[in-house]
Amino acid sequence: MKVLVTGAAGFLGKKLIQALLTRGQLTDSAGQRHDIQRIVACDRIALSDIQDPRLTVRSGDISDAAFLATLFEEEFDSVFHLAAVVSGQAEQEFELGMTINFDATRQMMEALRQQQRRAKMVITSSVAVFGGSLPAQVPDEQVWRPQSSYGVQKAMNDLLLSDYSRRGWIDGRSLRMPTIVVRPGKPNQAASSFASGIIREPLNGEAARCPVALDTRLWLLSPARAIAALVQGHELNAGALDQGRVINMTGLSVTVEQMIAALRRVAGDGVVEQITFQHDPQVEKIVNSWPGDFHATYAKRLGFSANADFDEIVQEYIAEANIRLPLA
Amino acid sequence: MKVLVTGAAGFLGKKLIQALLTRGQLTDSAGQRHDIQRIVACDRIALSDIQDPRLTVRSGDISDAAFLATLFEEEFDSVFHLAAVVSGQAEQEFELGMTINFDATRQMMEALRQQQRRAKMVITSSVAVFGGSLPAQVPDEQVWRPQSSYGVQKAMNDLLLSDYSRRGWIDGRSLRMPTIVVRPGKPNQAASSFASGIIREPLNGEAARCPVALDTRLWLLSPARAIAALVQGHELNAGALDQGRVINMTGLSVTVEQMIAALRRVAGDGVVEQITFQHDPQVEKIVNSWPGDFHATYAKRLGFSANADFDEIVQEYIAEANIRLPLA
Repeated sequence: MKVLVTGAAGFLGKKLIQALLTRGQLTDSAGQRHDIQRIVACDRIALSDIQDPRLTVRSGDISDAAFLATLFEEEFDSVFHLAAVVSGQAEQEFELGMTINFDATRQMMEALRQQQRRAKMVITSSVAVFGGSLPAQVPDEQVWRPQSSYGVQKAMNDLLLSDYSRRGWIDGRSLRMPTIVVRPGKPNQAASSFASGIIREPLNGEAARCPVALDTRLWLLSPARAIAALVQGHELNAGALDQGRVINMTGLSVTVEQMIAALRRVAGDGVVEQITFQHDPQVEKIVNSWPGDFHATYAKRLGFSANADFDEIVQEYIAEANIRLPLA
Repeated sequence: MKVLVTGAAGFLGKKLIQALLTRGQLTDSAGQRHDIQRIVACDRIALSDIQDPRLTVRSGDISDAAFLATLFEEEFDSVFHLAAVVSGQAEQEFELGMTINFDATRQMMEALRQQQRRAKMVITSSVAVFGGSLPAQVPDEQVWRPQSSYGVQKAMNDLLLSDYSRRGWIDGRSLRMPTIVVRPGKPNQAASSFASGIIREPLNGEAARCPVALDTRLWLLSPARAIAALVQGHELNAGALDQGRVINMTGLSVTVEQMIAALRRVAGDGVVEQITFQHDPQVEKIVNSWPGDFHATYAKRLGFSANADFDEIVQEYIAEANIRLPLA
């Protein structure tokens, strides 16, 4: 198997590549399991911190047609397309969001179509495709009504991936991901960035600001579960995808208050005191337009699973970041 | 008001232009009613059979960037964008469908955005955005799961029009039209072409072939109602659009058997004998993926209405086509 990973230098990209290298095998669209011979890790910034003879690093802009053409001079059996402009930035910079989130994805599908290998393509969609008046728990049959350009771009990808798959040009799967928490590193321009920040910063002895109300309900998945879902989504046999190529993923429904209570249980009162509250109407407007709970019936039937509780998610981050409790 | 109509030489385009010229006024996005000073009628083939000093005919390909640029050298207050590649052709010719149905629509929205007049833009969407497992009567909250490239392209337009409207760049409305029956003229490549043909051809003394089963349920609207809906959809105040810019239109839910029974009631047994049945699996597959009945709750609340029964639709065609009953 020859595998392309975009957004490879990102947090999920790196984790996915490590998981694929460890796993060593993947199943192709004909249902045959093969060794992974080669992973091309593509990002704007070259991935630098994974060494493996099977790994080739490419750096470039996937919205640059010339770069994309050279990238696809090589044939791929599988693509994990993770590169994206995050929600907040796609809202601020409309053209950039359209170009990276939609046009580049479309061009990649087209490049795979031209290769005529019916490559598997895993993309990530988002709860941001939903909005407007919503039931407390969103069913798989819920109409898409995005309230952000990011959500629109992701929904358009979902539609096009489904059509390319229906036509047999690719074997696509779109995993509609919950907010992935706790991300390591610094805050980013995602409207959901705070959901990691209010856990990560206090655990690193830093102040964190929460821009939304305590009763804000979020739909979450931990990084480890997200990586497992990407691999599982890839491995599913196309014949099992009887409700289409777009899967509302399993997740954990919690309020910000419940997140903070879990942090308190796991790490103590002192840690929680690092969190202050300051409403940010722009962030609130976007985050409140996303549903906080899903049935995810199709995903459960396909065998996807979520975190048992938020304590598990906090503990996963503590273990991952080598944080020693109790904190001083 | 300066108005652009695309697909102007088509059946609906001509009727719309006649209706607008007769009406003489439209309401702009600020809610002000103005005289229609000018209608630019754009199509690949020049519209030739309407004469009015307010009318200017342009012929060209809206997927040609240079043509589009000259078209939008002029500023418009309103655009009725009807030009499209029909469902059957968009399925046969994927690139053509993407280029005309999606890319050209996107470029028109962008041209209007650049004009910074927050023009009203009315587009037509389709029941083809729905598919898969569906309830007998489709609610407004039903997820989009198109089973054709045409449906995908229309759904992507709906998403993008909503985003451009949310951002205040245009004042868009997408009317998700039922199958419009009875169209005059010849059969076309639309998968739904037969739905007009089985009424039109017998009334014109010609044989018609029905490619689907008698119990096939269709969601229909007559041409006169469709034109009224386009104007009404344009006139609605943006403030009333509290469930978004995409409206599942009101229609009439009937089976092919009920359509033929109405034709028999209105025009007699001899006319109905012109219809023969021969299954076409390709047409059936597409048509059966479309829902045959909708709640259309939002549309009803906004004041849209449908035909009372199919007899009315048959009679509308008979009057329109100057057919004299009883037929010989």
